[in-house]
Amino acid sequence: MNNPNIVIIGAGYGGIMTAVKLQKSLNVNEANITLVNKHSYHYQTTWLHENAAGTLHHDRTRMQINDLIDTSKINFVQDTVTKVQPDDKKVLLENGELSYDYLVVGLGFEAATFGIQGLKENAFTISSINSARLIRQHIEYNFAKYNNEADKKEERLNLVVGGAGFTGIEFVGELANRVPELCKEYDVPREKVRIINVEAAPTALPGFDPELVEYAMNSLEARGVEFKIGAMIKEVTEDKLIFEKDEKREEISTNTVVWAAGVQGNSLIVDAGFETNRGRIPVRGDLRAPNYDDVFVVGDCALIMNEETERPYPPTAQIAIQQAEHTAENLKKLVQGNNHLESFTPEIQGTVASLGHNDAIGVVFDDKKLFGWSASAMKKLIDNRYLLKLGGIGLVLKKGKLNFFK
Amino acid sequence: MNNPNIVIIGAGYGGIMTAVKLQKSLNVNEANITLVNKHSYHYQTTWLHENAAGTLHHDRTRMQINDLIDTSKINFVQDTVTKVQPDDKKVLLENGELSYDYLVVGLGFEAATFGIQGLKENAFTISSINSARLIRQHIEYNFAKYNNEADKKEERLNLVVGGAGFTGIEFVGELANRVPELCKEYDVPREKVRIINVEAAPTALPGFDPELVEYAMNSLEARGVEFKIGAMIKEVTEDKLIFEKDEKREEISTNTVVWAAGVQGNSLIVDAGFETNRGRIPVRGDLRAPNYDDVFVVGDCALIMNEETERPYPPTAQIAIQQAEHTAENLKKLVQGNNHLESFTPEIQGTVASLGHNDAIGVVFDDKKLFGWSASAMKKLIDNRYLLKLGGIGLVLKKGKLNFFK
Ligand SMILES: Cc1cc2nc3c(=O)[nH]c(=O)nc-3n(C[C@H](O)[C@H](O)[C@H](O)COP(=O)(O)OP(=O)(O)OC[C@H]3O[C@@H](n4cnc5c(N)ncnc54)[C@H](O)[C@@H]3O)c2cc1C
Ligand SMILES: Cc1cc2nc3c(=O)[nH]c(=O)nc-3n(C[C@H](O)[C@H](O)[C@H](O)COP(=O)(O)OP(=O)(O)OC[C@H]3O[C@@H](n4cnc5c(N)ncnc54)[C@H](O)[C@@H]3O)c2cc1C
Repeated sequence: MNNPNIVIIGAGYGGIMTAVKLQKSLNVNEANITLVNKHSYHYQTTWLHENAAGTLHHDRTRMQINDLIDTSKINFVQDTVTKVQPDDKKVLLENGELSYDYLVVGLGFEAATFGIQGLKENAFTISSINSARLIRQHIEYNFAKYNNEADKKEERLNLVVGGAGFTGIEFVGELANRVPELCKEYDVPREKVRIINVEAAPTALPGFDPELVEYAMNSLEARGVEFKIGAMIKEVTEDKLIFEKDEKREEISTNTVVWAAGVQGNSLIVDAGFETNRGRIPVRGDLRAPNYDDVFVVGDCALIMNEETERPYPPTAQIAIQQAEHTAENLKKLVQGNNHLESFTPEIQGTVASLGHNDAIGVVFDDKKLFGWSASAMKKLIDNRYLLKLGGIGLVLKKGKLNFFK
Repeated sequence: MNNPNIVIIGAGYGGIMTAVKLQKSLNVNEANITLVNKHSYHYQTTWLHENAAGTLHHDRTRMQINDLIDTSKINFVQDTVTKVQPDDKKVLLENGELSYDYLVVGLGFEAATFGIQGLKENAFTISSINSARLIRQHIEYNFAKYNNEADKKEERLNLVVGGAGFTGIEFVGELANRVPELCKEYDVPREKVRIINVEAAPTALPGFDPELVEYAMNSLEARGVEFKIGAMIKEVTEDKLIFEKDEKREEISTNTVVWAAGVQGNSLIVDAGFETNRGRIPVRGDLRAPNYDDVFVVGDCALIMNEETERPYPPTAQIAIQQAEHTAENLKKLVQGNNHLESFTPEIQGTVASLGHNDAIGVVFDDKKLFGWSASAMKKLIDNRYLLKLGGIGLVLKKGKLNFFK
């Protein structure tokens, strides 16, 4: 009769998928499961750049958690975790406190600003529904303001994105589609607006196949994106960004800097006293935290090594989902008295970066390169597959990307 | 062969209607007609409060001037008037200069701020497409921001409207409809948002029938509007408004003050050296400016007296349109060599103030009072009638308010 308490914190890809899988594989009388999340909804982080640009409404990206889980099997607590105390087996919430026998940490990522001056105060990040919606409104407000001021400030129309990695490129792709619409809505001549992508590495999309990188840059430049590659951001102020390139300092006047160049694990895991490496927990093979047999870590809070390259896997939704499924399996074993946990190895099915509607680049099935429409269709398939796993065909029909031609 | 030059400045109700009427009644070889306007479009000022609240898109309110006039008969110059020089019969533009034989001044109104401290710098006004769109975006931005800040600032959600006259009441009516939508879009609890209407006079809608005033206030209060009546605004800062009521000072923390409590004629008419009375030109019976036989004034730049009450008529679109039609008639006479101009008397057909979708109050046919849906339908009929006069049934179908049930 002594049911173990399983507490899952964070309902991102990792947390919600762990909950949904456990709900299917465990009986009600085998464990008490509690899912904690800041908001009443789960959102697809991988779509937030579209909400931020304004090309997709945020209600398409989020879904009520009560619609995804069976609340007769899982308790849902809408609250914010303020501290994890693994030695006491406790999780402190803004309005309460939970004890656990097993904890699943799925608190996701936060921006890493690498101490760049003024970045934290003056740049936006794409990290939640709230922050994405704010970016959309900030840009629109500045377009509206531009036309209503006598002394027109060009910093309102210079949109700067820090980082040409996966997220940065996906975001400028959406902006490139959005800007002509914004110009129409706010009577701003297109040629006054700049979309500038600043990247410190010697190439955009470091790690991607050069042919794909070239395709992406050509596609984006053709739609008016300017790249500053090999350019180190030095400082961000209220109305400008300063970078250094070829040992020269340059300035861009802007009040819209969106930082998409670095993430780290949620800082609550450092505060909790877990061992961390670049803000993430270097989990053991079975995804448990070092020294804590009752703490599993999924998603962006976990650091796992790629044995082949001897480098950490970049954190992705894909891996978070697989880790969640794996953790649900291992938890089922523990609850049912079996202590032989399985070790986790990600199966990278492919990586596809969107460049805006109907355009994308990617690698799938190990080494097949995709461009343009076929890559974009593949991206939509991947997203729909996640929704299918999470909530069945009903959820795909409600929130899926079903129009492959738009 | 010496065709007179007729120059019309401003394409508001007064200016555009003068142009359209002249185009119908004069032959091409009788006069050279030039219409000057700041923007490429004409807008219906009487709908701007809906654009500002976000209940109607601004593209419904404006129409391209080239679609309204026959450009083989009328020259359209998109430019801003910087000075009128009646003694030289000249109009200076930002990018040029025009000479006239007859001038029609239709430059409309601007906000009168009565020297209230900080009002000019910190309050918004509903006076053009640009300014209305900015209010819409400002409010949305603050709702978005509220949810993304740790230390939530209540001034973002306190919407204050200065003035409970015609415009102020119409605007709070739209806000009352809009706020629940905004709360949904930005995940803000409705009870956190305040809509506050501050009026110095001892009643809302001064000059209206008390029964109508009561109906209006009840309808608005039922939808969450708070009234501060007999409250003098003393100062507006970036984040608060200070008023005095019953000899006590009170403060409302807000960064959204929309000033709807006073208008005067375009300040260019004072700069031009015309005789003015509270910023408007006290025109002669035939709508010509004192001392200038070649200058007609229509709309909010003109001051005309109501002989019965011995007070000036409040400036309205209704009067501006009638003055325009009258002026076109008189100009036709002058061009055709007849110097006996007709005197103008407005025919007030009715006054209807909207309180939001489907609700309104008004007086029509001299003394018939209307409430609710019937008043709202009457208001739409009046607006459609204007569009019919301006551009025929095609324009009514394109821009009219055809849905009487919504
Ligand atoms: C714009 C963008 C595009 C991306 N595109 C892709 C892509 O195409 N493919 C891909 O595989 N990956 C992509 N990624 C990466 C991917 O989104 C992340 O790897 C993934 O979201 C990590 O999942 P997670 O479950 O760890 O955390 P998240 O999805 O970030 O979820 C964390 C959850 O925890 C909640 N939470 C956080 N703190 C607290 C707290 N204190 N209390 C309670 N709840 C809390 C949050 O509200 C959230 O619901 C993209 C990332 C971004 C930003
Ligand atoms: C929110 C609101 C609601 C209202 N509701 C009603 C109502 O229901 N019924 C009613 O009868 N009245 C109403 N009024 C009053 C009515 O709108 C005005 O009386 C009317 O607009 C005056 O018309 P106008 O032609 O003088 O000027 P406007 O309509 O103001 O037009 C002036 C034109 O001149 C142009 N212009 C200005 N300066 C320059 C320049 N320097 N160079 C070139 N062009 C310039 C402007 O762009 C504009 O197109 C309302 C007013 C407001 C603000």
